[in-house]
Amino acid sequence: MYKRITNITLCPGVPDGEPLTFIEGACIDIRDGVIEYAGKGEGAPATIGCEFIDGGGCLAVPGLANAHTHAAMSLLRGLGSDLRLQDWLTKKIFPAEDRLTADDVYVGAQIAFVEMLRYGVTASADMYMFPDEVCDAAEAVGIRVAMCYPATGQGSDDGGSIEKGADLLRRRHNTANGRVRIMLGAHAEYTSSPDIIRALAEKARDLGASIHAHVSETRAEVEGCFERHGVSPVKYFADLGLFDQPALAAHCVYLSDADIDILAAKGVFVAHNPVSNLKLASGVAPVPAMLNAGVRVCLGTDGSASNNTLNLWEEIRLMSILHKGISGDPASISPSQTFHAATLAGMRAMGFERVGLLVPGWRADIALIDRSGPHHWPILEPAGDLVYSTQGADVRMTIVDGIVRYIDGKFPGLDTDDLKKRACVAARRLTDGLIGGAEPIDRA
Amino acid sequence: MYKRITNITLCPGVPDGEPLTFIEGACIDIRDGVIEYAGKGEGAPATIGCEFIDGGGCLAVPGLANAHTHAAMSLLRGLGSDLRLQDWLTKKIFPAEDRLTADDVYVGAQIAFVEMLRYGVTASADMYMFPDEVCDAAEAVGIRVAMCYPATGQGSDDGGSIEKGADLLRRRHNTANGRVRIMLGAHAEYTSSPDIIRALAEKARDLGASIHAHVSETRAEVEGCFERHGVSPVKYFADLGLFDQPALAAHCVYLSDADIDILAAKGVFVAHNPVSNLKLASGVAPVPAMLNAGVRVCLGTDGSASNNTLNLWEEIRLMSILHKGISGDPASISPSQTFHAATLAGMRAMGFERVGLLVPGWRADIALIDRSGPHHWPILEPAGDLVYSTQGADVRMTIVDGIVRYIDGKFPGLDTDDLKKRACVAARRLTDGLIGGAEPIDRA
Repeated sequence: MYKRITNITLCPGVPDGEPLTFIEGACIDIRDGVIEYAGKGEGAPATIGCEFIDGGGCLAVPGLANAHTHAAMSLLRGLGSDLRLQDWLTKKIFPAEDRLTADDVYVGAQIAFVEMLRYGVTASADMYMFPDEVCDAAEAVGIRVAMCYPATGQGSDDGGSIEKGADLLRRRHNTANGRVRIMLGAHAEYTSSPDIIRALAEKARDLGASIHAHVSETRAEVEGCFERHGVSPVKYFADLGLFDQPALAAHCVYLSDADIDILAAKGVFVAHNPVSNLKLASGVAPVPAMLNAGVRVCLGTDGSASNNTLNLWEEIRLMSILHKGISGDPASISPSQTFHAATLAGMRAMGFERVGLLVPGWRADIALIDRSGPHHWPILEPAGDLVYSTQGADVRMTIVDGIVRYIDGKFPGLDTDDLKKRACVAARRLTDGLIGGAEPIDRA
Repeated sequence: MYKRITNITLCPGVPDGEPLTFIEGACIDIRDGVIEYAGKGEGAPATIGCEFIDGGGCLAVPGLANAHTHAAMSLLRGLGSDLRLQDWLTKKIFPAEDRLTADDVYVGAQIAFVEMLRYGVTASADMYMFPDEVCDAAEAVGIRVAMCYPATGQGSDDGGSIEKGADLLRRRHNTANGRVRIMLGAHAEYTSSPDIIRALAEKARDLGASIHAHVSETRAEVEGCFERHGVSPVKYFADLGLFDQPALAAHCVYLSDADIDILAAKGVFVAHNPVSNLKLASGVAPVPAMLNAGVRVCLGTDGSASNNTLNLWEEIRLMSILHKGISGDPASISPSQTFHAATLAGMRAMGFERVGLLVPGWRADIALIDRSGPHHWPILEPAGDLVYSTQGADVRMTIVDGIVRYIDGKFPGLDTDDLKKRACVAARRLTDGLIGGAEPIDRA
């Protein structure tokens, strides 16, 4: 299959430390899911037997990488907003999750992946129950996923959670033409004993697996970790060997300078989730300090229950402005740093190779952005326009692995009306009696 | 003219201290720009001679109020992003503004008003040069505006700025069927001597005028005010009588408890501009403390040069989550408080009477929101969905004073292609030589 996307402005993405660049009058040639040419239309190769796709004057950017989410939680979108964290968890989220079936997760993950495609997201890192169904959903929708099942447990009893994740990895890692990858998951310091984390790290080493974990999301978590272990969650995981494999640490809101040094030295990717961290009142991650220390920062939405959407452009915009306001320095984060986090850094964190730049030899994950709306007039600085002005709804086409998965309101090959109906039926059952005032349910 | 909007869910808006409510299967009847009926479709009055508008299953909410902006700055959208404030002003904004003509302002304000309509905004409070042209632009586009010309000056020399604002008020206040209102403007403490502010307050009293001022936007401004006058900007303005008339104070980022008490006691409306305050690295306004003290908080975008858009839904979303993250309390701001700020509070701050609720006898300023997109599935909590999930692009129709001004990508009666062309020509001239590295220009 040989395709040419014509009539575009090309933003090839952000290689390490480089600025955003824009090439007008460009085209992209794709053969068998791989970019063969990306550059000026003049001088492009001959196109015998080529299928032409009209880019409509849009800006082509690399598909976005959502580096931390729980896709199936879209069934619980916005449940229990504005409650305090413990009430939210114990009165709303846990009781609803206790009702989840494998089919619910399959449906919930699909509506999440549809939403991501709609906003140009072509890959996400996920941690949840029923991980096979999340992978199935990603395959059905045609999006990339880096899935993990979270290990938890006290003492030396992990309840089989480590092996469950390892089994998933052996069966599904690097399948679906490489679109499905499996990581090993550590839920969090406070849900896992040192024995569990040590065993998980060992399993990851044996399997050559990457790690995905929740790290230092709240102040209470960090204070509790010091009480339990005398160290921060970052040092706890590092000391137990969890960061000796490639690792993705979600949140990292409360970090000491020493924590930042560890994350940088170990090459840990940090998934910054600014919307979720604000909505759940967790706080603001020290992103400029991490970037200055060389930590590899990427961006995530977290689940829809705490966001409420999977529109990564909100994270892009917020990462771009939030840290300026908090630090008092408008130069603290550049558009290229933010867009690097939203694309190449996230793809690398998930282990997708040759995904995240629009250059020859790389996989064709592409989002086409319509910049004709009034919120873009006039475009004086394209890099700023990309991160400060672009809205998710500006995305007109999303291509994953060379295949058009979203175009102008349609998801080719998917019956989204049926999906939406099934999601609403499932959501009603899961949240029955939990909307409005609910009593706490003991999960001991 | 008698119209009925059918097939809607109705959110009548947020009266003081009340929660958001939603009425399904509703309709709205409009006669001569005034709402005659708003409620259940069953039981609605007879419709002899009525024009029907299909609401398409959308959610009808009151038109949004953008309580602080500089519309014409859309011509400078995003200019000099990521520069430090003084560089941004002296190297980029001031040199470009020095080139502004009356026609530029007319064009720039029109593209801003078009953008606002696209997002359901039906009124804005503006402060800028060439205020007649801003009013002309609002009339041409069919949107409400509360315009002011900023008084400035040292000693007792105001350069005629107070009279310029007063003259505008005498000529244009409450014209265009009440859609154009004029306030008196005080640019800021640091650009006006006590004599100027005292004279402006007196003029406002004589004319029965409301006031619009920049107040306590940056730490440097507050520290400078203490050095110059020994008091905060809030106390400075209050002592000089500026808050004895109805007043709208933009920003209010740096406030003491005493400042908050003054703002509450004087009934001052505060325009919270969270995106601009973050992007310009000004900081985070103490909104929960203001709300708890009874200060009347509304929402603004500020100008496009410091935002980069006029999509007030970004402010709604950010006000909803930012203060939770900063305060550590997820219950610190409710959806109804945010939506009240974005609608009724802003309309009141501008002095628009009977605008901001969808109830009989009030003006028909309405936005129709399409909630069929995947970022809304499933709607479990409509109030949370409204503030956390809604995007500006979900607005399908905007009605001002009973007239449809935006519908599905079109602005009836406006040639937006021509407008866009003229805006781009003007923007190129205004920013010529200022994109990229520019030398400072002395404005002494």
